[in-house]
Amino acid sequence: MNPVTIAIILGLLAILYGFITSRQVLGAPAGSDKMQEIAAAIQEGAQAYLKRQYSTIAIVGVVVAIIISLTLGHISAIGFVIGAILSGVAGFIGMNISVRSNVRTAAAAQTGLQAGLTLAFRAGAITGMLVAGLALLAIAVFYWYLTGPSGHTVGGEDRTVVQALTALAFGASLISIFARLGGGIFTKAADVGADLVGKVEAGIPEDDPRNPAVIADNVGDNVGDCAGMAADLFETYVVTVGATMILTALLMKGIANFEGLMALPLLIGGVCIVTSIIGTYFVRLGGSQNIMGAMYKGFLVTAVLSIPAIWWAIDYALGDIGAEIGTTGFSGKSLFHCALVGLIITGLIIWITEYYTGTGYRPVRSIAKASETGHGTNVIQGLAISLEATALPTVVIVAGIIIAYQMAGLLGIAYAATSMLALAGMVVALDAYGPVTDNAGGIAEMAGLDDSVREKTDALDAVGNTTKAVTKGYAIGSAGLAALVLFAAYTTDLREFFPDLDVDFSLENPYVIVGLLLGALLPYLFGAMGMTAVGRAAGDVVKDVREQFKANPGIMTYESKPDYARTVDLVTKAAIKEMIVPSLLPVLTPIAVYFAISFVAGVENGFAALGALLLGVIVGGLFVALSMTSGGGAWDNAKKFIEDGHHGGKGSEAHKAAVTGDTVGDPYKDTAGPAVNPMIKITNIVALLLLAALAAG
Amino acid sequence: MNPVTIAIILGLLAILYGFITSRQVLGAPAGSDKMQEIAAAIQEGAQAYLKRQYSTIAIVGVVVAIIISLTLGHISAIGFVIGAILSGVAGFIGMNISVRSNVRTAAAAQTGLQAGLTLAFRAGAITGMLVAGLALLAIAVFYWYLTGPSGHTVGGEDRTVVQALTALAFGASLISIFARLGGGIFTKAADVGADLVGKVEAGIPEDDPRNPAVIADNVGDNVGDCAGMAADLFETYVVTVGATMILTALLMKGIANFEGLMALPLLIGGVCIVTSIIGTYFVRLGGSQNIMGAMYKGFLVTAVLSIPAIWWAIDYALGDIGAEIGTTGFSGKSLFHCALVGLIITGLIIWITEYYTGTGYRPVRSIAKASETGHGTNVIQGLAISLEATALPTVVIVAGIIIAYQMAGLLGIAYAATSMLALAGMVVALDAYGPVTDNAGGIAEMAGLDDSVREKTDALDAVGNTTKAVTKGYAIGSAGLAALVLFAAYTTDLREFFPDLDVDFSLENPYVIVGLLLGALLPYLFGAMGMTAVGRAAGDVVKDVREQFKANPGIMTYESKPDYARTVDLVTKAAIKEMIVPSLLPVLTPIAVYFAISFVAGVENGFAALGALLLGVIVGGLFVALSMTSGGGAWDNAKKFIEDGHHGGKGSEAHKAAVTGDTVGDPYKDTAGPAVNPMIKITNIVALLLLAALAAG
Repeated sequence: MNPVTIAIILGLLAILYGFITSRQVLGAPAGSDKMQEIAAAIQEGAQAYLKRQYSTIAIVGVVVAIIISLTLGHISAIGFVIGAILSGVAGFIGMNISVRSNVRTAAAAQTGLQAGLTLAFRAGAITGMLVAGLALLAIAVFYWYLTGPSGHTVGGEDRTVVQALTALAFGASLISIFARLGGGIFTKAADVGADLVGKVEAGIPEDDPRNPAVIADNVGDNVGDCAGMAADLFETYVVTVGATMILTALLMKGIANFEGLMALPLLIGGVCIVTSIIGTYFVRLGGSQNIMGAMYKGFLVTAVLSIPAIWWAIDYALGDIGAEIGTTGFSGKSLFHCALVGLIITGLIIWITEYYTGTGYRPVRSIAKASETGHGTNVIQGLAISLEATALPTVVIVAGIIIAYQMAGLLGIAYAATSMLALAGMVVALDAYGPVTDNAGGIAEMAGLDDSVREKTDALDAVGNTTKAVTKGYAIGSAGLAALVLFAAYTTDLREFFPDLDVDFSLENPYVIVGLLLGALLPYLFGAMGMTAVGRAAGDVVKDVREQFKANPGIMTYESKPDYARTVDLVTKAAIKEMIVPSLLPVLTPIAVYFAISFVAGVENGFAALGALLLGVIVGGLFVALSMTSGGGAWDNAKKFIEDGHHGGKGSEAHKAAVTGDTVGDPYKDTAGPAVNPMIKITNIVALLLLAALAAG
Repeated sequence: MNPVTIAIILGLLAILYGFITSRQVLGAPAGSDKMQEIAAAIQEGAQAYLKRQYSTIAIVGVVVAIIISLTLGHISAIGFVIGAILSGVAGFIGMNISVRSNVRTAAAAQTGLQAGLTLAFRAGAITGMLVAGLALLAIAVFYWYLTGPSGHTVGGEDRTVVQALTALAFGASLISIFARLGGGIFTKAADVGADLVGKVEAGIPEDDPRNPAVIADNVGDNVGDCAGMAADLFETYVVTVGATMILTALLMKGIANFEGLMALPLLIGGVCIVTSIIGTYFVRLGGSQNIMGAMYKGFLVTAVLSIPAIWWAIDYALGDIGAEIGTTGFSGKSLFHCALVGLIITGLIIWITEYYTGTGYRPVRSIAKASETGHGTNVIQGLAISLEATALPTVVIVAGIIIAYQMAGLLGIAYAATSMLALAGMVVALDAYGPVTDNAGGIAEMAGLDDSVREKTDALDAVGNTTKAVTKGYAIGSAGLAALVLFAAYTTDLREFFPDLDVDFSLENPYVIVGLLLGALLPYLFGAMGMTAVGRAAGDVVKDVREQFKANPGIMTYESKPDYARTVDLVTKAAIKEMIVPSLLPVLTPIAVYFAISFVAGVENGFAALGALLLGVIVGGLFVALSMTSGGGAWDNAKKFIEDGHHGGKGSEAHKAAVTGDTVGDPYKDTAGPAVNPMIKITNIVALLLLAALAAG
């Protein structure tokens, strides 16, 4: 059977898994009326937000689609639209599963830790498999259609397929940056605002039903950590696998079994969906009741099974895994070894992230300890950890680049990235589990369930903080590799489109330095905008809640209910408004830099600066993203560690300092940090599209 | 007269200015016995610290000198020793002036704001002129000796002079990173520790004599902000002017009037000493009593007078400013325009820094406003501002690179950097004024002077926060340009030493990406170590003070005096211990990366990765340093803005939050951030020396 067909079937398998498992999850008891009422409010708010977010993005999307259609043709525009819509669908599904399983997880936690874990993790697994399955199907079906019914060829003069795949990736990225940033601003504005006015001012606990912002806070977990994350990982998958295929099309054309090599990334994605599904069934608490251990078990099973599965995929797609590929000097076996490198990078990043954000190790404990001497030392130590946390992942990524490149050149780096993303189903499952348990805890608190239930959901949630950080490290790490692949596509394209230009990408060319500096600036400016947006929107929340308390004193005495919907609506408007400008930054900057430098120093230097900008974004962005996501996770768990009874426990001065650290970490880890990943990719893809448009124009 | 001789005479003029002005300053009344007693304690502590710091550095210095002597010969070793010793001397003098003028400034502030300003600024100007004068003399005299009495030639086969100048720069940089970091750890550990245990725990005001850490805090201002800063700027001056001469020697050899072009950077430095001295006499309060305005006046006079002065210098050194230089296609006039670019960059960076750290503008006010909603939002907004503050300086530096390069190639960039540093006398004067006023405030408080005195010193100090941030932005901005020059020297040297190697510095070479990533990692890791060190040492201070309060309850009732010396000694030991490892990071990393990559991927890629590492350090470091120094300054002044009676004023909840932000900003702006500047240069210089050693070995 054609490898593309097999990939499509396996993609459908992921969708099937999603349907079956969601029936199981939705069949579980949904708790008391009160719990269901709270859950309904969260659900309603999340749907209202996503509806408004997607309507706004649609306007941008339509404009961009028209521009693409006019400059690059209809097929590319269709690719863009497919990428955009499916990215939105991935987010929507993620949110929908999450808002239905949160209350069921709270209900299940009443019977035991294992029951709560099973339900929350299954909910996560649905999102995970649907993200991976949809992403795989998007590329595979589109590729099948273009090279089959539509009759285009790849690897020759016809650039349609390569451009259409690029446009598909752009659609996915553009939606995902809006979703990540808009959702991120929503969730953290609500969270920070609720904490400030509730915990700090009114002195009521987190998730107290009297706090008008409490529903908005829980809505935020779903639209940010769940919908935003799902759109982001969909994008990462599409871009990585797409970039590998584009690089293959550009570098490998004319070799024997070119079609097999083109289809190989899809087949690897397909077989790893099977191994991910199998892995989900191994997430079970052992005798030690170690939740992180249960997660590890599932991941390890998936990773180990993926090794023979990828071997088979390469052997099947290429016909013979040992034969040399074209005249490259390397064989399918080399690609297999590169894929192993990708699996090892994934494992190491998970392990490093757990070290930096888990409550059992030095970093989190050092922040907890520093909280004893006050707010200032908590934040100083948290910042120190966030800076430090960039080191090991960078070394791992650098080692991965070197090893993969030694084995199979640029294509080797592409395969390392592809095999990382092939595990996305499993990794997203681990991540999406987090917001479900976070919400479950909120519902348990608001519905007045027994404290033992909250204890269980808190234990699940603490692991969720780590798994959420893991996905972000994983996404940004893979972005580091994918950006190299995209840069290679850029330089190859440049030579093909403009064979007469002599573009100097050497570090000795000052315009390269200029590009690197401007590229590295982007994540800083983007981060600044994201952080400011959260601060501003959180301030609005504080004012709104103060007004509600003042206008309706019955709220504090439980005599009347706060107007949750009003706060949700306010945060919605603020998040939508704030997400626009920063999201357009990576779209417009590459275009502006190209034209500005071309004007000043000629077209060659314009292209050189643009190329350097692409690498500057990744060199700058990798560190900004890693430091923000790890640091934020560490601050959050330092607070949890103190709440577990260390350094004075809840209510102590150390706890207050830790709450400050957690508040600071919130926009770091959930708004600015994770949105850097799609930002890097957008910059790169816009450059590719600009090249194509300039060549066509 | 030979331009080198003129430069030496003008360098001596700076020293003469220093002597005359210090007589004036030391002749001013030193206040009451109590004030003198306090000042003596600070002086003693500062001298004890510097003595221990320099003894420790001396051990490292001797080892490095021996290595240089064995690999590169005696003359280079002598150059290294001269750079190292004079860097130490610059720091020592800066500290010495500062500890004598603090008490006199406090005394002068009793008579009026202008009197306080004059005294403090004169003290700063002494340090400024001595730093610039010593730096100029170090290079000029050494260069004169090598090319005169010692009989070496430049621009031919004899590499002695170039290597000796490189070694001189290395000596200056190595000492300055220790001084910046050691002093930075000392000052902030004492500051943070004193605040935590005094203001927060014991509820006594800042600079209260009952706090055993209060003398250590004031000592810190002198050994960190003064001695560390002076060593840093000495280093920046030597490296920038030295790099311009090295680049000239490598690129321009064989042209007519080569000697004149070699001497030109020295002559520019010399004439700007004269303009800087004149400028100092224009720092006077106008009718508006605007302190920052007075500073601006002095700087503007210097900058404007420097324009004709630099024109004259170029015309004199080259014989004819309009004639083409060699066959480069540009003339002395082009270099003059590049020098103007440098002056404009300096002015813009001062203006941008004032915008981001002054109390009159949006950034600082937004942090002050965010303090109303608590510690968390203060820190979030401060971090947002620190990220944002990187944007405009980067754009200015990028524009400067483009314009200077268009006008006179790499040499143009070098001249832009040189003219920036030519103003160092004036810029350091503005900076060194800060710690003097800070100390004066402390002495006024401890000696129980009238509140009106403290108000005046506080007003002077608030401007000091901005001018301190200005110098850091200026130093790191010039480092951006200087690093490009050093990188050009690296690639030129590489071709000269190893003409057969084909080193690929293109961004398409993955080992270049590896180098960029590892380079960008360095400032993060370095920053993490610096921040952690401050946190740890501040914790020790807290414990020590708690013990003193417990063992001696009479302290709080003024019945007995705390043991100030014990705390000073403790911080001294901690700072010395903590500075070693991070300071060696930039020395050892380039060597390790070269050998590791050479081993894995061949010597060509080893050199490529090392070159990329040099640019990675600057691309990563520029943003880390700019964000930390501006953010820290903004936090500090946000607190001052609240203390001036906004948002509830002193003692309000907003003020408490602002104190937290200030504490966080302390190690940001005074430890980790500024030390990135010498770190960048060390990495680059070590690479140059490694090249020479490999070629010789």
